[in-house]
Amino acid sequence: MLAKTKKGDVSCMDKINRVLLVGGTHGNELIGVYLVKKFEQYPELIRRPSFETLTLLGNSKAVEACVRYIDQDLNRSFDLQKHENLNSLYENQRATEIRAKFGQIGEMPIDLIIDQHSTTSNVGFMLILDNPDVLTLGLAAYLASNHSAIRVYSSVGSHRNLDSLRSIAKYRIGIEVGPISHGTLQAELFQENEVIIQDTLDYLEKSNNKAVVPEESSLTLYQYIGVMDYPRNENGEIQAMIHPRLQFKDYETLNPGDPMFLTFDGEVIAYQGTVSVNPVFIGESAYLEKGIAMVLTEKKQIQLV
Amino acid sequence: MLAKTKKGDVSCMDKINRVLLVGGTHGNELIGVYLVKKFEQYPELIRRPSFETLTLLGNSKAVEACVRYIDQDLNRSFDLQKHENLNSLYENQRATEIRAKFGQIGEMPIDLIIDQHSTTSNVGFMLILDNPDVLTLGLAAYLASNHSAIRVYSSVGSHRNLDSLRSIAKYRIGIEVGPISHGTLQAELFQENEVIIQDTLDYLEKSNNKAVVPEESSLTLYQYIGVMDYPRNENGEIQAMIHPRLQFKDYETLNPGDPMFLTFDGEVIAYQGTVSVNPVFIGESAYLEKGIAMVLTEKKQIQLV
Repeated sequence: MLAKTKKGDVSCMDKINRVLLVGGTHGNELIGVYLVKKFEQYPELIRRPSFETLTLLGNSKAVEACVRYIDQDLNRSFDLQKHENLNSLYENQRATEIRAKFGQIGEMPIDLIIDQHSTTSNVGFMLILDNPDVLTLGLAAYLASNHSAIRVYSSVGSHRNLDSLRSIAKYRIGIEVGPISHGTLQAELFQENEVIIQDTLDYLEKSNNKAVVPEESSLTLYQYIGVMDYPRNENGEIQAMIHPRLQFKDYETLNPGDPMFLTFDGEVIAYQGTVSVNPVFIGESAYLEKGIAMVLTEKKQIQLV
Repeated sequence: MLAKTKKGDVSCMDKINRVLLVGGTHGNELIGVYLVKKFEQYPELIRRPSFETLTLLGNSKAVEACVRYIDQDLNRSFDLQKHENLNSLYENQRATEIRAKFGQIGEMPIDLIIDQHSTTSNVGFMLILDNPDVLTLGLAAYLASNHSAIRVYSSVGSHRNLDSLRSIAKYRIGIEVGPISHGTLQAELFQENEVIIQDTLDYLEKSNNKAVVPEESSLTLYQYIGVMDYPRNENGEIQAMIHPRLQFKDYETLNPGDPMFLTFDGEVIAYQGTVSVNPVFIGESAYLEKGIAMVLTEKKQIQLV
């Protein structure tokens, strides 16, 4: 499944001509929103000689209202097959607009999208790879080697390569930062996120100039397996909370029999799976309505060279 | 301003006949919501011999939608003078309903309301006193002596005794818990909040039976002074974040000249006041739209006996 390249062999990589830096795909994820606003005020910060960098506030109406979305999640609105008879929904209209402007047959086709998110879960800085191609893996390995808080997550199998905003570009990377409450900023996370964006653009500049020298021989990847919902009653009401021993323990190994949930009465519910997993997005607030208590991953070591 | 009582002299205290335990005054503050649901399932947990305990999900429509409010903040909707021509707003209708049922001339007048909230700021467990009368101060001192995470805040001067849900009762106490993201639960905070509720009901039972023996001679009170907004531009957009040295430092002393905000460009904005203050609700997400970056308080020592 995963593309491989020989050490130093970057000749097969595409040249990146146009990058889109997105914030506010969810309107209340403020670090991305205010980074985009900053870059729009100081465009020289994201200018690089070999490619053009554009910016976008994804869900502009939701940004204005400081809410996640107006009618539905914009980051699940890019699968055209799901639009049928639902064009009255704001996010479907917005997805059509964004695709017409930045899609592969749009006005200004984008080669690479950097989509900035934040989460209430303790993911640190998470790079989301929808397609672990050579360029994206090289970029992720480079960023991970420069930022100790970075972990790399592969969303392959989760439909994000079909329905997310960034799915309209050939290359894309999602950046999640957490834990942070939606609707808030944290100065230190904002500043580190900004450095990660700068490092990403610097890497792409080097890659365009064939000046990338892979230094990492392998990369730890948290590969999407599936999602786990809260225990619920027949009315759909949740019956338990994340167990304190699992809360904020994103990426750590959860073994069969380990505490997973704690009911409101204090009863422990253990993980019933047969294999060890590494949960991420544990207790993310916006996933409660999606029926997701956490996303299960498998921790893998990927050879890069 | 503050009522005093001699040591052991509780004879002047009213008997409490009916207590209302409220969660979900803000619909996405889930600890209070799920505590109320638990107590509705197991009413024996909140039963005491000398008084009746009722429960209420304050903003029931917002609880269902897992949002703070539908049209406006329910906890600012109880000032009847502000209802003029605005009866189409859901929260004004809901306030009228709640007052008709539980107000002083309602069907089941409530003597004491315990209103449960949560916040993204680092307040630990905060007791909010709108009226620091003898009964409430005694209760607060008792709870603070039993829970090291409790701090006591007096909202006198902030209008909460006019417009909040709990303002309809003669005695009231707000309980805030944080930091926690809205729309999430944290099992350990849930469990400690439950113990605080139990301790509150136990204290009221003792107080009704004249069995309260004040053990604390003084109480630290964070007295409301006013609010501080973020620096904003002419369009109302915020221009800075909470400074990292102030973030999550609720209750700590902020001196004139101390860093308060950090602009998106990295410029430090110092606190310009002339007296030291003790900020609380620092960076609370729901206060961004209210024009509040933090609430300033004065730390006071109150003699109880």
